Amino acid sequence: MKPFNLDFDLLTGLSRSKESTKRPLSKMKGIYSDAEAFQNVLQSDDPLVYEFYELDLPETSGNLLFGTSIVYPGKIGNEYYMTKGHFHTILETGEVYYCLSGKGGMLMENPEGDWDFQEFSPGKAVYVPPRYAHRSINVGSEPLVTFFTFRADAGHDYGTIETKGYRKLVVDLEGQYEIIDNPRWNQ
Amino acid sequence: MKPFNLDFDLLTGLSRSKESTKRPLSKMKGIYSDAEAFQNVLQSDDPLVYEFYELDLPETSGNLLFGTSIVYPGKIGNEYYMTKGHFHTILETGEVYYCLSGKGGMLMENPEGDWDFQEFSPGKAVYVPPRYAHRSINVGSEPLVTFFTFRADAGHDYGTIETKGYRKLVVDLEGQYEIIDNPRWNQ
Repeated sequence: MKPFNLDFDLLTGLSRSKESTKRPLSKMKGIYSDAEAFQNVLQSDDPLVYEFYELDLPETSGNLLFGTSIVYPGKIGNEYYMTKGHFHTILETGEVYYCLSGKGGMLMENPEGDWDFQEFSPGKAVYVPPRYAHRSINVGSEPLVTFFTFRADAGHDYGTIETKGYRKLVVDLEGQYEIIDNPRWNQ
Repeated sequence: MKPFNLDFDLLTGLSRSKESTKRPLSKMKGIYSDAEAFQNVLQSDDPLVYEFYELDLPETSGNLLFGTSIVYPGKIGNEYYMTKGHFHTILETGEVYYCLSGKGGMLMENPEGDWDFQEFSPGKAVYVPPRYAHRSINVGSEPLVTFFTFRADAGHDYGTIETKGYRKLVVDLEGQYEIIDNPRWNQ
């Protein structure tokens, strides 16, 4: 392994030297609570919900993967645009997110049933401890941009969240975000 | 472990909620090449060369430590202000630095004798692979601010660099930085 560098714009999060991985709405079936609103949007449009960068480093416990995540502003029904959310396959590995721009938060829960929501605003670092599934949510009107770092061997378990959902939803209530129980949470 | 957040100003790197660790010049004996210039400065002043943040998390391989590093502008002789530089005690662990403001670079070398210098400018992320000692150097006129993340059990080996020095020095040559061999490098 040799040292290297990579650029990520401090405001937009975008890199001039690397392609991002894109998640348009059509790739998020089953993720949003309001299935009807989800289908209605898709009939006329397939908006980009978020994008992020994936590095190709050896997946060892001594390497770190890093990049930016950009969640665009928007809602499906009353639920804000957000990432799919995932556990790490190696559950005992944490992750660091540093917010560069935008407004939102990180929704987290662990298999033991603890959950938490930490707000993002520019300059705020959020620590996702080992064992916590994590999902970035944009509650503002600008893109939510974070810089993340995690162990290269951690891996992504998207399936658990796709199957069970999150215990909580973050929804818009008259212009403010509110955290509510997920009525469709599948224990 | 519970989720938490911590603020680091995107321009200055300083946190409102946490005290930094400070390295005034007097704590850097033997680090700069020009010992006479070092003593001359200390006779009248003890300038702050750099500061950084240290978290108190369990030092396990699944946790990550993070914070900002702020290297102030200045020189000792013709050598720029810089951090002491260190290997990780667990040599096989890497580190990520994301530059928030300022101008400079990361000087790296491994025990095998490979060395590298990656430039920092705002928005540039530098990857320090496993096995590489690393030192941040400010070659500009503003503070050099980076956000770093590394494995919580990695540990700091400052002694090897204090004893042997770096193979290379980064010095000012008529207003531009230049990388030269360290005449006092102790193999």
